[in-house]
Amino acid sequence: MPLEIPEVVINRLPVYYRLLSRIQGEGRAVVSSQELGDALAVTPAQIRKDLSYFGRFGKQGRGYSVQRLTEELRQILGLERRWRMVLVGIGHLGRAIASYHGFEPEGFDIIALYDADAEVVGSTVSGHVVRDASRLEADLAQEPVSIGVVAVPAEHAQEVIDMLVGAGIQAILCYAPRAVQVPDHVELRQVDPVISLQSITYHLTRTLEAETP
Amino acid sequence: MPLEIPEVVINRLPVYYRLLSRIQGEGRAVVSSQELGDALAVTPAQIRKDLSYFGRFGKQGRGYSVQRLTEELRQILGLERRWRMVLVGIGHLGRAIASYHGFEPEGFDIIALYDADAEVVGSTVSGHVVRDASRLEADLAQEPVSIGVVAVPAEHAQEVIDMLVGAGIQAILCYAPRAVQVPDHVELRQVDPVISLQSITYHLTRTLEAETP
Repeated sequence: MPLEIPEVVINRLPVYYRLLSRIQGEGRAVVSSQELGDALAVTPAQIRKDLSYFGRFGKQGRGYSVQRLTEELRQILGLERRWRMVLVGIGHLGRAIASYHGFEPEGFDIIALYDADAEVVGSTVSGHVVRDASRLEADLAQEPVSIGVVAVPAEHAQEVIDMLVGAGIQAILCYAPRAVQVPDHVELRQVDPVISLQSITYHLTRTLEAETP
Repeated sequence: MPLEIPEVVINRLPVYYRLLSRIQGEGRAVVSSQELGDALAVTPAQIRKDLSYFGRFGKQGRGYSVQRLTEELRQILGLERRWRMVLVGIGHLGRAIASYHGFEPEGFDIIALYDADAEVVGSTVSGHVVRDASRLEADLAQEPVSIGVVAVPAEHAQEVIDMLVGAGIQAILCYAPRAVQVPDHVELRQVDPVISLQSITYHLTRTLEAETP
């Protein structure tokens, strides 16, 4: 498998995967790059280019096998495994994340919660006893975890990320609305509701304009 | 302006806008579809197609004016206005959203909080006195609001959305990890951290495979 797949292509694969899962759920066996492109408003050439990075799918003029492509994406994205996560920052956001029901069905397990506040450490949240953040490095040395979820206030996000990276974590999902940095070997994703709002406002603007005489 | 712009194209515009803002911040005056495409791993043809829906930018072989394109996207997306939002569901997630510092700098203002729990109603959260959810319809009739943010437990998400839609809200940002429905005239976006995690695991899988002898 080639190694130089652009990051933004990788970020699109879960969207393909979700679309294909839906098509598979409809009982369809074959799908063309044209149909995939139509569903995502992407040119068929772009679809073929994105999928060609993995170099194994489809035949000219035959379309893609939905089952095979879904399974390959599952494997490429590592979705057939379960992934262990630690959550740092057990304020309101952290508590909401700890009780979020969307992770587990998709293979993501929060195995431990951490906070720096002595009043929070030792309390039970979503079935976990909150651990002292100072234990992070020792704990991760003991039982490795792949993904750190950061839910601390924005002003502490970078120091917590540095701590997680120092403890050997390989990937960070950060909820803080602030630019943060990680070394090249660590994957960083930021949860960003503003991007969603900024496409909503496209429609709201059209509606306002239509209402203005 | 043509009206039939595919939803998925509109959803990509905030990403273009963010990239262009960064390029503008670097002091660049002109950018080509090739450069934009390289940055997003999208074919230049796809970039030109996406932007051509708005039919006003760029000249063959000359590239796009960064300032003009940024400003046009700002206007198209309605980002030069401020947008009023109500937040329903003042549990842990709602409290985290109410105190989220990422909305206001981008023009999104939470103007009121609602909950159905008598123990929460009347308390002050992030400077707002939480209102009884039963007041929603009357309040929105009094002072219209564009966007409803839904942070209630998954099992209540649909009923709250129905209530917001009944009260005349035009757009919903839903945090519940559950499929929900809105009428055609209402915009719905769901905040979905799993899509972010599913591209992280691509990299983690590569690392695991590299470590396996």
